Amino acid sequence: MNVFLRGRARPCRTVTFDAARNEVRLIEQRLLPHRFQIVAMPDFRATARAITQMVVRGAGAIGAAAAYGLAQGALAFRGNDPARFSARLDLVYQTLRAARPTAVDPVNAMDAVVRAMRAGTTVAEQQALALAAAEEFANDDVRHCAAIGRHGEKLIRPGANILTHCNAGWLAFVDIGSATAPLYAAQKAGKKFRVFCDETRPRCQGATLTAWELAGQRISHQIISDNAAGHFMQRGEIDLVIVGADRVLGRTGEVANKIGTYTKAVLALRHDIPFYVAIPLSTLDWNLRSGRAIPIEERDEAEVLGVWGAAPGRKEPMWVRIANPSSGARNPAFDVTPPELITGIITPEGIFQPGALWKNRRLLGHGG
Amino acid sequence: MNVFLRGRARPCRTVTFDAARNEVRLIEQRLLPHRFQIVAMPDFRATARAITQMVVRGAGAIGAAAAYGLAQGALAFRGNDPARFSARLDLVYQTLRAARPTAVDPVNAMDAVVRAMRAGTTVAEQQALALAAAEEFANDDVRHCAAIGRHGEKLIRPGANILTHCNAGWLAFVDIGSATAPLYAAQKAGKKFRVFCDETRPRCQGATLTAWELAGQRISHQIISDNAAGHFMQRGEIDLVIVGADRVLGRTGEVANKIGTYTKAVLALRHDIPFYVAIPLSTLDWNLRSGRAIPIEERDEAEVLGVWGAAPGRKEPMWVRIANPSSGARNPAFDVTPPELITGIITPEGIFQPGALWKNRRLLGHGG
Repeated sequence: MNVFLRGRARPCRTVTFDAARNEVRLIEQRLLPHRFQIVAMPDFRATARAITQMVVRGAGAIGAAAAYGLAQGALAFRGNDPARFSARLDLVYQTLRAARPTAVDPVNAMDAVVRAMRAGTTVAEQQALALAAAEEFANDDVRHCAAIGRHGEKLIRPGANILTHCNAGWLAFVDIGSATAPLYAAQKAGKKFRVFCDETRPRCQGATLTAWELAGQRISHQIISDNAAGHFMQRGEIDLVIVGADRVLGRTGEVANKIGTYTKAVLALRHDIPFYVAIPLSTLDWNLRSGRAIPIEERDEAEVLGVWGAAPGRKEPMWVRIANPSSGARNPAFDVTPPELITGIITPEGIFQPGALWKNRRLLGHGG
Repeated sequence: MNVFLRGRARPCRTVTFDAARNEVRLIEQRLLPHRFQIVAMPDFRATARAITQMVVRGAGAIGAAAAYGLAQGALAFRGNDPARFSARLDLVYQTLRAARPTAVDPVNAMDAVVRAMRAGTTVAEQQALALAAAEEFANDDVRHCAAIGRHGEKLIRPGANILTHCNAGWLAFVDIGSATAPLYAAQKAGKKFRVFCDETRPRCQGATLTAWELAGQRISHQIISDNAAGHFMQRGEIDLVIVGADRVLGRTGEVANKIGTYTKAVLALRHDIPFYVAIPLSTLDWNLRSGRAIPIEERDEAEVLGVWGAAPGRKEPMWVRIANPSSGARNPAFDVTPPELITGIITPEGIFQPGALWKNRRLLGHGG
């Protein structure tokens, strides 16, 4: 998407690779929205650290970062010995895999790179194939998000008021995003509409990342507290909800996504408002048989007890304490929305009712 | 309730009057939870400013502050001329009334003081009656909250997990609070239970005030983001919801309360969790015929775009920006919960179904 730097719009991806310098380049997302900065990771260890420390986050984005990181590690190898190269590659793979152990996208992305490298015999051939495969993963991510946009755009009628939660935008992918893809496609189609961004406590990805994205693309939007959507639904001010997902169970249609998603789905049902989940195929989990089996990460209570913000006139955010110092917090990061609350799953292959994913599993990329 | 100062528990009311100095004394609530400070208002204008600037907030607390402020203005009058005294008193009344124009409690409280003063003839007599009536208003507020506690305590079974939203605690009244009254009564009765405090964005009264209160009273509690209650309900971790209210319609049973209350009521119904609203009689509105007629205040967007917090090691909170600087926000401060989502209204006169308020209106203090 475009980023406005010194008054000029420049196209920008979340994750790119500088082959001349052998660097993975990332938007430093922890500084947004206060400051826009591209940071260069000089080696695969730095790329892994950037994933762990959430310089880059979001399913597609960390997948691409891991794929590029693997290519980066391969390209840094000096020599011709295939056995030593292979050992080195294994170290790079394990380092990047351990950077975000619960995520499946980095593993899928790196496995694709490793498969592609098998076509080469010399170290140099394999290095070139690794880079090409990483680029292909990133380009596929962009194509898949564009396809989500083409399908989802049809749901947006002119004048619609659309609620989204958290950030499933281009910052979470290589470009375009999942939940935001229909918005960007509708904008291209000349439709006017308005977006409510849930703030999305505790990490506030709606107020920081999604609002920053939409402002950059000149999409009309307003931030609301997570408490306010119910009131706006009551008053008839929300017509459609689109969110992303961290995992969708292909067998049951259950959706794990950022904490608060379930609440919005319950409210949407009460008010007869369509509730859609937009995902690439890599978000589908064909193994788990119940949403109860999805592990819900409970994160550091400091995220709830305080927040990252910038003092007036400052561009560096700092953590400030909101809550009573002697009180603790619970901080579940995700919740699970059952299929009966979901109108449809928007995928690159079309829109499916959550209960129809399994019978369309071949189309949706399930090998088994 | 008790406040712990230098390691010692001292009983403390939210609003008191120092007759020797003719000062209204208030807890400076804008500094909580970072710092505890009692501030003295030297004259009625300062008392009015404290209401406007939210040094003191909450229905019962601003009612008592206004009643004391009126007595304070009366007591400051020097002379014996009843006509000049009356003119002065009118100025004091209007100043305090204008301090929070949408609230009804200051008006009711001051009207009670004015009625009591009619029994006196000399200025000195009326001054003494004003002070006595203000003290009576404050003491009645405490008695009413204690009665709410006696009725509400029966709803709390040992081991219960209770959710509350915003702050309807002793900081919002003269003492004890409305939604917190059943908690404090259950604690006195020796019951063990646990409280989830909704953070309550945007002003975070749950994370700041309610958590501070409960910590001071040694009640087991944890703060959660407003997004998390739905997840905990799904997992069976919440047994009971008790909230306060800003206005309850006696004719319909509709409840206006802090934004997000409606969402919690919708979730509670889905999970068959009892949802109670605790109020003194002064919160009942016998005039309005529909919740749609309740004006919903939309407050400054800065509350949503940022937050007040304290940097590590600091005791003075500051406002920090969370959100994208070029984005705006919507900030409705209240919402309206319909009676079908409410299990009961806990009042000083007992617990009533929301639809039964009107037929019990005499008992509940409706004169008409």
